[in-house]
Amino acid sequence: MVNNMEKLSWIAVDWGTSHLRLWLMDDQDRVLQHITSDRGMATLKPDQFEATLIGLVSDALPATGSIPVICCGMAGARQGWVEAPYTKTPCLPPSIDQATRVATDDPRLKVYILPGIMQLPPADVMRGEETQIAGFLAGHPDFDGVLCLPGTHCKWVHISAGEVVSFRTFMTGELFALICNTSVLRHSVGADGWDAEAFAAAVSDAVSRPSAIAGNLFSIRAETLLCDLDSAAARSRISGLLIGIELAAARPYWLGQEVVIVGASGIATAYGVALAQQGATARSVAAEDMTLNGLRAAHAKLAEVSP
Amino acid sequence: MVNNMEKLSWIAVDWGTSHLRLWLMDDQDRVLQHITSDRGMATLKPDQFEATLIGLVSDALPATGSIPVICCGMAGARQGWVEAPYTKTPCLPPSIDQATRVATDDPRLKVYILPGIMQLPPADVMRGEETQIAGFLAGHPDFDGVLCLPGTHCKWVHISAGEVVSFRTFMTGELFALICNTSVLRHSVGADGWDAEAFAAAVSDAVSRPSAIAGNLFSIRAETLLCDLDSAAARSRISGLLIGIELAAARPYWLGQEVVIVGASGIATAYGVALAQQGATARSVAAEDMTLNGLRAAHAKLAEVSP
Repeated sequence: MVNNMEKLSWIAVDWGTSHLRLWLMDDQDRVLQHITSDRGMATLKPDQFEATLIGLVSDALPATGSIPVICCGMAGARQGWVEAPYTKTPCLPPSIDQATRVATDDPRLKVYILPGIMQLPPADVMRGEETQIAGFLAGHPDFDGVLCLPGTHCKWVHISAGEVVSFRTFMTGELFALICNTSVLRHSVGADGWDAEAFAAAVSDAVSRPSAIAGNLFSIRAETLLCDLDSAAARSRISGLLIGIELAAARPYWLGQEVVIVGASGIATAYGVALAQQGATARSVAAEDMTLNGLRAAHAKLAEVSP
Repeated sequence: MVNNMEKLSWIAVDWGTSHLRLWLMDDQDRVLQHITSDRGMATLKPDQFEATLIGLVSDALPATGSIPVICCGMAGARQGWVEAPYTKTPCLPPSIDQATRVATDDPRLKVYILPGIMQLPPADVMRGEETQIAGFLAGHPDFDGVLCLPGTHCKWVHISAGEVVSFRTFMTGELFALICNTSVLRHSVGADGWDAEAFAAAVSDAVSRPSAIAGNLFSIRAETLLCDLDSAAARSRISGLLIGIELAAARPYWLGQEVVIVGASGIATAYGVALAQQGATARSVAAEDMTLNGLRAAHAKLAEVSP
């Protein structure tokens, strides 16, 4: 239940494919309440977004007047709430001026969806990460370097003079999940456990011989059958092989660059370890903080425009 | 229905993970009937194999006496009917002498499961392909070269002096199916259609820069969103990227070797095209014929031992 909401000023929303995170914000940009839900974009039809949002925040909404709701992420995808056009690299992280205004039945909501960023060529897209980038740049306006945003689809982003110069997406996280959960290797991996040595060896293998990936993966199955390979080692090797080939391909992004990993979870730590092994140092920042800071920056600009 | 089975002499069985193929054979080693079923190993508990077999062939079994049933494939896996130990490289393709005899409740069956082949190091295993190899060698006893056996788990096998010298398995077919059916790229690919130019370009890309695979895969998604990439081109590119990195890793197997592709389906054709593009020529033989010939060779030896 939401209490004491007389101070609700605006709502920040990160509407991803599988999850929805929102923050009720006061007029000092402090978080009154953080709400998470599994009603991600993939679970909703366009006409279900408004009701989903109302269901989560109705207790907090004022009886009169309207509350700005600033959204980033897959709510703006073609299959989302309303398609929010991309901005195109090279570009500043999209701001509220470029947001798509969404009409709602409930007059208490004033919904904005921030655009994603596209690149051509090579073709690439992001939705959500651009807001994390904006959040990072709000705190580091002079940053010149590379952001690595691990996740289902890991992004490497070259930032210079406050702009997104170029980026490249790798399906590493999604491949890891598919291989561990759905392929024949599901019989080999454990649900948890970590073997740092197995991870490190796999990163090295993959960096030095990336083409062998589909063979090295099957070796894990064979070693389970023939050598009783430990299930934590199997999982760590799959992770190391996939992150290793990604690092080999992303070398122009991290070699000799200042790298910041946006994320502090297990997967972000694994990227940091793998980079260190390749002689690159990276620091990390918390991804969720960056998202919220990016939405705060958008809201601040909205307040300037229509105080 | 099985008719006129007075001539049934033995039963050849290829019991795979997802499918079961069997042939009712006369005393001249001719096929009386070919039966396929989706009761593969993965769908059965160990105590269900006998009943499954009986259900498919009972009409053909004689009232008295017993019929040899010679099986290859996953029936011999740890999760199969009875585990049939592997033979170890370098070795001749396993023969009936090394088969595991399986006790049955029905006295009309005399079941043998042929072993698979293992390798250490690098750790690798096969179950079923060794029988295709035996079938190929039965017709080409002097072959010295490499067999490529495309499929869910593609095998490259170095054959010399009638022996399996070494082999290497790539999860290429399984990765292709997972990526096309389950990943975000399922929205990009068509169920059928082929774009030979897109395939060829992807093979080249992957051979020259194998590490980029996870990025090149995501580009397909981005091109669907941004450039309306054709769904047949998307599917062909995924295939080309995966076969391309496999060829890069398997180069020691095919470079300057006589290569025979065991298979004549779409995927086998794709391997042939990709190899030709790399300057290697390969001929192909029908996989099912090789399986049956391998089982015939095992039966012939059984008949010698216990006529």
